[in-house]
Amino acid sequence: MLSVVTNLLRRSVFTSTATLGRKASAMHLEKQTKELLKLPAQEVKDWLSNFDAILTDCDGVLWLYSDVIEGSIEVVNKFIHSGRKVYFITNNSTKTREEFLSKAQQMGFCVDTDKIISTAHLAANYLKRMEFNKTVYIIGSSGIKKELDAVGISSFGVGPDTLNGGLKNLVDNELKRNLNSEVGAVIVGFDEHFSFPKLAKATSYLNNAECLFLATNTDERFPMTSCVIPGTGSIVRSVETAAERPALVMGKPNTACCKHLIDDKIIVPERTLMIGDRCNTDILLGTNCGFQTLLVGTGVHKMEDVQKWQKSGTAEEKKLIPDAYLPRLGDLLQFIDS
Amino acid sequence: MLSVVTNLLRRSVFTSTATLGRKASAMHLEKQTKELLKLPAQEVKDWLSNFDAILTDCDGVLWLYSDVIEGSIEVVNKFIHSGRKVYFITNNSTKTREEFLSKAQQMGFCVDTDKIISTAHLAANYLKRMEFNKTVYIIGSSGIKKELDAVGISSFGVGPDTLNGGLKNLVDNELKRNLNSEVGAVIVGFDEHFSFPKLAKATSYLNNAECLFLATNTDERFPMTSCVIPGTGSIVRSVETAAERPALVMGKPNTACCKHLIDDKIIVPERTLMIGDRCNTDILLGTNCGFQTLLVGTGVHKMEDVQKWQKSGTAEEKKLIPDAYLPRLGDLLQFIDS
Repeated sequence: MLSVVTNLLRRSVFTSTATLGRKASAMHLEKQTKELLKLPAQEVKDWLSNFDAILTDCDGVLWLYSDVIEGSIEVVNKFIHSGRKVYFITNNSTKTREEFLSKAQQMGFCVDTDKIISTAHLAANYLKRMEFNKTVYIIGSSGIKKELDAVGISSFGVGPDTLNGGLKNLVDNELKRNLNSEVGAVIVGFDEHFSFPKLAKATSYLNNAECLFLATNTDERFPMTSCVIPGTGSIVRSVETAAERPALVMGKPNTACCKHLIDDKIIVPERTLMIGDRCNTDILLGTNCGFQTLLVGTGVHKMEDVQKWQKSGTAEEKKLIPDAYLPRLGDLLQFIDS
Repeated sequence: MLSVVTNLLRRSVFTSTATLGRKASAMHLEKQTKELLKLPAQEVKDWLSNFDAILTDCDGVLWLYSDVIEGSIEVVNKFIHSGRKVYFITNNSTKTREEFLSKAQQMGFCVDTDKIISTAHLAANYLKRMEFNKTVYIIGSSGIKKELDAVGISSFGVGPDTLNGGLKNLVDNELKRNLNSEVGAVIVGFDEHFSFPKLAKATSYLNNAECLFLATNTDERFPMTSCVIPGTGSIVRSVETAAERPALVMGKPNTACCKHLIDDKIIVPERTLMIGDRCNTDILLGTNCGFQTLLVGTGVHKMEDVQKWQKSGTAEEKKLIPDAYLPRLGDLLQFIDS
């Protein structure tokens, strides 16, 4: 049991790259990031002509909360109208795929449902594919519950659950009794109502080795300047620590989220571009899948981070280095032919 | 920043042993655990005669919650009456040193205040020694607040803090404004009222690099058979992940909790015995300090765990192997001369 904990706590945000061999590492040691705005326009156009599929992160690339990032609609729609396959891929678990679609379309993005890859949908589909027929305990929000409802899987846990009557009451009247014996999986996503009783219930369910343990993503925090909004990752680490076992992560950088696109030859890795603002999810996913990668500076990571990893980063940090960089996605507009 | 996260997430429960060199590791590879009840009585008596100081964990060794573990009072009091220095050393942060003393004395243990080493007291004393003169934000319980009060340090945060008015309200009206500018340290201990707003506030304070970050301990969970009660460690990991930096841990296995006893020559490591029920805190502390170690089977770890690490454990797991084992502390009674 302890070795599980050890391995678990040793796991870094880079887990999914563990399988990359020496050759890949050596390659990354030499990797340079092309700053596209410093290159001749024709060189950028030639580079873009390599791609017939594009995966783009949403928050921090296309929009920030409810505000569109200038120029992103024009770039994305030009890509779509040029016949490229453009996927929106987000670690956000608070919305259903339909809700993302609606948000994106209302903003003006010409995207369809089948081009939205979201973690709540991935989690529900994972359980559906394995013909899961028990109940799910959710630490998370209604996006997860709605996606489970859509595939006919029952669930509960969304909303406030605070300590009433003290710890002894929680243990005696909720944990020792009244745990739902139908629970066969715990899903952890972003939950603004995360609380000790939820943590205790999730880990008590997970004490049964048969109970599945899924996490939507492991993003540590949301990008803010004046304060910190903890991300799903901080909730997941808490549950993993008390449960003494790791969650199966649905979202980026876990390559499972793109597996069917590659396996079914819907996209060809060497002709695919991954665009993101966070290197340890977006860029790492791209690297792991064999895509080319583009970092934009409108979210979590900046060119200074990349330069730091290029100079003195560990082998794992080298894997976060993107192939290309732009201050914002809109800067690409000048290089896309109509 | 990311390298901090990487290192943080790579940290294991064994962090404090990282400085042990190859020689020590090699030594532990050969370490055997003496099962005292299988040895001739005289051999056990001779072994016990090596020690003039004894450090013992409390929960799981001396008592389980409010129940004394049979025989522990007799053994501890015999040690005390034989002139040995006996310290009670606990990672529990919910009580003050005085409250532990009172509990122990009421049970019948002949212990004095200066022999109680508790994490809330260690945290308060750490800040006092560095002449800390700001305010502390606490995720934890009143034990921490009372110990801070006792050394004249102001603090707040104990008790329920649930989400009212949604995430936007939390961010706009509490995190972006109304954070207390006097906060200069965050202490994380066991908190049954742990919640998302507390996590967000702690990490927003910690976003100021000057803000100190202390944790009482990193125990993953409490030993229960029918359910899981998450330990302080699961709360600490959550805050560390969102704060993107590690806490300074006060309790076992961090050797800081015994430093003054050794530095001031109050105890001599080679003549000191550490008794515990949890190998990754108690036994590891003993190993790290150069004490002899005794595992008792009335709490978290059992002889089966030890045998597993002896057979196939990693180098780090080997460090958890105790020098001696007893099913319960009371079994020692027969070997202590009156």
